[in-house]
Amino acid sequence: MQIVIIGSGNVAYHMAKAFTLKSIPVAQLFGRNEKELSKISEELNIPYSTDHLGEADLYIICVSDHSVEEVSKIITKKDCLVAHTSGSLPKEVLAGEYRKSSFYPLQTFSKSKELDYEKIPFFVEAGNEEDQKILFDLASKISERVMKSSYEKRKYIHLTAVFACNFVNHLFSRAKEISDSQEIPFDYFLPLIDETVQKIHEIEPKMAQTGPAVRNDVRILQLHEQLLKDESLEIYKTMNHSIQEMYEL
Amino acid sequence: MQIVIIGSGNVAYHMAKAFTLKSIPVAQLFGRNEKELSKISEELNIPYSTDHLGEADLYIICVSDHSVEEVSKIITKKDCLVAHTSGSLPKEVLAGEYRKSSFYPLQTFSKSKELDYEKIPFFVEAGNEEDQKILFDLASKISERVMKSSYEKRKYIHLTAVFACNFVNHLFSRAKEISDSQEIPFDYFLPLIDETVQKIHEIEPKMAQTGPAVRNDVRILQLHEQLLKDESLEIYKTMNHSIQEMYEL
Repeated sequence: MQIVIIGSGNVAYHMAKAFTLKSIPVAQLFGRNEKELSKISEELNIPYSTDHLGEADLYIICVSDHSVEEVSKIITKKDCLVAHTSGSLPKEVLAGEYRKSSFYPLQTFSKSKELDYEKIPFFVEAGNEEDQKILFDLASKISERVMKSSYEKRKYIHLTAVFACNFVNHLFSRAKEISDSQEIPFDYFLPLIDETVQKIHEIEPKMAQTGPAVRNDVRILQLHEQLLKDESLEIYKTMNHSIQEMYEL
Repeated sequence: MQIVIIGSGNVAYHMAKAFTLKSIPVAQLFGRNEKELSKISEELNIPYSTDHLGEADLYIICVSDHSVEEVSKIITKKDCLVAHTSGSLPKEVLAGEYRKSSFYPLQTFSKSKELDYEKIPFFVEAGNEEDQKILFDLASKISERVMKSSYEKRKYIHLTAVFACNFVNHLFSRAKEISDSQEIPFDYFLPLIDETVQKIHEIEPKMAQTGPAVRNDVRILQLHEQLLKDESLEIYKTMNHSIQEMYEL
């Protein structure tokens, strides 16, 4: 099977690298950014082009959500499978007459960061069983964790990641505002943060909850509210309310 | 300096262990729970008692917040220094005629979990410079990260930890509800979560923010709101509002 990867960003790079590490040949890298393409091409020993899209059985589009549709139009071939790598788009956003699919790796990518691809979950979807199997088998060569996933399901996957990653990072930002205000290095909190995250590798987060809200420690909750204002106060109230609802306090 | 540790829980155990590892003798473990005391005593080779509080220059009270005051009354000696280990109590809660202080390790403890004590921040406070120095020097033998800290400051330290740990854990709980609803193993999100936390060891959380809110991706934000209800919807709106305020979107 001939595979062409379209794009030159973080996802394109890691996808190409994951295939290469498993000796799955990539026939071409195609994109606009020649500088990036040539770097990836050199590192992974894959040909690239900025103007002539190569022949393939499977095109994997690794570009940002808002460019997927536009980029998908450059594939004029009909007898081929095309996959995008977005967690939040239906496969129907692909705008050609080929067979449409989704090949979604659940990870945040940056070029400088080494990743253990076997641990990255892949969610795959195609329009028929045969294509589904092609993508499932391909992902299974890279990763131990492959699941079929409809667009409906991908929406929830993305939403879970927003809670568990995007919002978690924002809590770190708000926490740092508080420690900065007292000139306490935010670094001091990293061991506690690491421990908090390590814990949910071993037990369910619901069983691991600590803090004043789950203890219903009214003195502390009131004291803390007096120290906060604006968005941080809103977060404080909303999170405590949600904790107390979950534990029926 | 004679040190006696009061308590038999997780904090007492790790405090005793941290001292022992640095060859700082602990004269006695004192508490009510003989079973726990005898286990710690055997492991660390420290005498214990449940009825006769030993003589000491420094008593460190390692009991839960609501018991600190009551427990502090058993120390009738006047010429000694007494510290509690709570992040959210003033030193004045200690109810004797001795010199009062606070010796606060910023970490979540469980007996079964090994910890790198050198990385655990200690916040110390005493009523005079001399006692302050005693506690500072003692903490510095255990840890690389020791700071003087008033009760005012400790309140903010605790609050930072609530945001960065307690609330983060609750987001994991709510995220798991979402993934459970779609029968997606929550384990699948652990590599992404680990990566999110690893990132803030390297860059400021504010610089690491990703997701639909910071991109102001209105399509996704609306789509997600339709998938949520009750507390999770409230969290979703509050967090996005706070993110957009922080980045002035």
